[in-house]
Amino acid sequence: MKCSYCNRDAVYLQRYSGKHFCKRHFISFFEKKVRGTIKKHRMIETGDVVAIALSGGKDSTTLTHFLIENYSGRRDLDFFAITIDEGIANYRHKTVEVAKEVTRELGIDHYVVSVEKNFGATLDEIVKFGKKSPCAYCGVFRKYLLNRTARELSATKLATAHNLDDESQTILMNFINADIDRLARLIPQREQEDLVMRIKPFREVYEREVVIYGMLKGYKLIFDECPYSELPMRATVRDFLYEFERERPGRKISILRSLEKLSECLKITNPQIDLNNCEICGEPTSQKVCQACKFVKELREEIKIEHCRSLVYEKV
Amino acid sequence: MKCSYCNRDAVYLQRYSGKHFCKRHFISFFEKKVRGTIKKHRMIETGDVVAIALSGGKDSTTLTHFLIENYSGRRDLDFFAITIDEGIANYRHKTVEVAKEVTRELGIDHYVVSVEKNFGATLDEIVKFGKKSPCAYCGVFRKYLLNRTARELSATKLATAHNLDDESQTILMNFINADIDRLARLIPQREQEDLVMRIKPFREVYEREVVIYGMLKGYKLIFDECPYSELPMRATVRDFLYEFERERPGRKISILRSLEKLSECLKITNPQIDLNNCEICGEPTSQKVCQACKFVKELREEIKIEHCRSLVYEKV
Repeated sequence: MKCSYCNRDAVYLQRYSGKHFCKRHFISFFEKKVRGTIKKHRMIETGDVVAIALSGGKDSTTLTHFLIENYSGRRDLDFFAITIDEGIANYRHKTVEVAKEVTRELGIDHYVVSVEKNFGATLDEIVKFGKKSPCAYCGVFRKYLLNRTARELSATKLATAHNLDDESQTILMNFINADIDRLARLIPQREQEDLVMRIKPFREVYEREVVIYGMLKGYKLIFDECPYSELPMRATVRDFLYEFERERPGRKISILRSLEKLSECLKITNPQIDLNNCEICGEPTSQKVCQACKFVKELREEIKIEHCRSLVYEKV
Repeated sequence: MKCSYCNRDAVYLQRYSGKHFCKRHFISFFEKKVRGTIKKHRMIETGDVVAIALSGGKDSTTLTHFLIENYSGRRDLDFFAITIDEGIANYRHKTVEVAKEVTRELGIDHYVVSVEKNFGATLDEIVKFGKKSPCAYCGVFRKYLLNRTARELSATKLATAHNLDDESQTILMNFINADIDRLARLIPQREQEDLVMRIKPFREVYEREVVIYGMLKGYKLIFDECPYSELPMRATVRDFLYEFERERPGRKISILRSLEKLSECLKITNPQIDLNNCEICGEPTSQKVCQACKFVKELREEIKIEHCRSLVYEKV
């Protein structure tokens, strides 16, 4: 097949639009699309210091390259990367090394933050004794460290590599679970003290498009999956959406649009609440005690774990 | 397995509650549940004349029995049945006969309304030449005739046999399609002139539960499927929900709850609009010309079809 825009061979068929793209036109489409998302939602504005959550996986590696290559020419912006080392044997060590290569190549500051050094236990240890799912612990401790590190290093934005597949899964899952509060929290929120505003530049492009872009640009991408990755409910929703998208291309975009259409009314019925500071650690939370501190309290009966008092990070 | 309420053998495991039911306790659960739904949403109130949409299929047969056996003792209520004969060869004739048996047995008035006698063409003829899907034509003409017959026969409510499976599929489909207007219309609406208020007494019980109830009560149920039944999108959603419900029982109930949680805000952003009378036939519509008249106009170029001027129905 030929490209819909020129005479070159196509490398990608975008099913929802019916368009074929050659390498050059796909790269150009992708960059225009993501820059458009960033502009429309004012994700990056003059004066911003953007912390990039870089795990070393395919999505965040591509995001880091994308942001630096497209925006670091601007003198009014600053970028650095944060990698959380959760302490997962046979997995995280390799991706941390990849992350270090990426930032070395791009010449940006990079900080590695270890769950073990900050809480006294690795995720592997926590999972062994905790009653919750690995992803529950990992999500809470990772977000805690990402936000705190970004803030202490004066970031104004925290960029994550969530793509359209991730977003549509999360939206649908919350809708199916009647979890309208969580649904409301997916709408871009106003700024809150101590909470670095999260941005998702890839939220309007498919995971497949992120990977194709990264590969066409020649980035070294690794496809290792976390050994704890299971999330049965998300997997069911993911498979359904895959099937659905195959039959009716564009449904994932529709789901994002559903949330946007509902956002005005969700803002009225589920207004964003003001955050408190956790009574134990002082980090922002909607409760009295933040979820990380609650987990630490629960886990302390089983393993040696402690509150993260002053943040420890390693500058690469 | 034994019943969770007595010492008898269980005939049904309700997966979302983990409860086992013997025949007697299942019947008692089902009747309490549906009567509760009717009461909560004020579906049937004193003075109501309820038209029951009775196709002769398993769900509407069970609904007709249920309503008559549970409510016809009340002198302040009246019931009759309407069957639409769309004109579908090798299918509808049989279910119309079953419907007649049901109303004869129950001793209620029954009206059969034919698409052919009212519009001059059968659904089979329409489908042969029309460009839309069979279900698109059928849905519009059936709803037109149901509402008009119910109103001309002085009904105050029109009861349909939609169950929890139908409702959760519709809700999810509209959400996935970003069709928030249609989502809003699934919220119980206020009364509108010329539109008989539709009620769905089975909307909070599973299709499986409707069938089990009907079989335990000894109703003669037929399981024939409409030959046009395809609806690829609904089928994908249905299969997904089946799988999902199997893994996480109760998800269909969650979807209904999602809509309820969103209903307050949908009422604000998508208020119910006042209906007009169709310029051609006078029936209620949100447009200038109703969808049935639009279809007639389109189809007139292909087949002999006419506006339904005065309604024709056959009293059984």
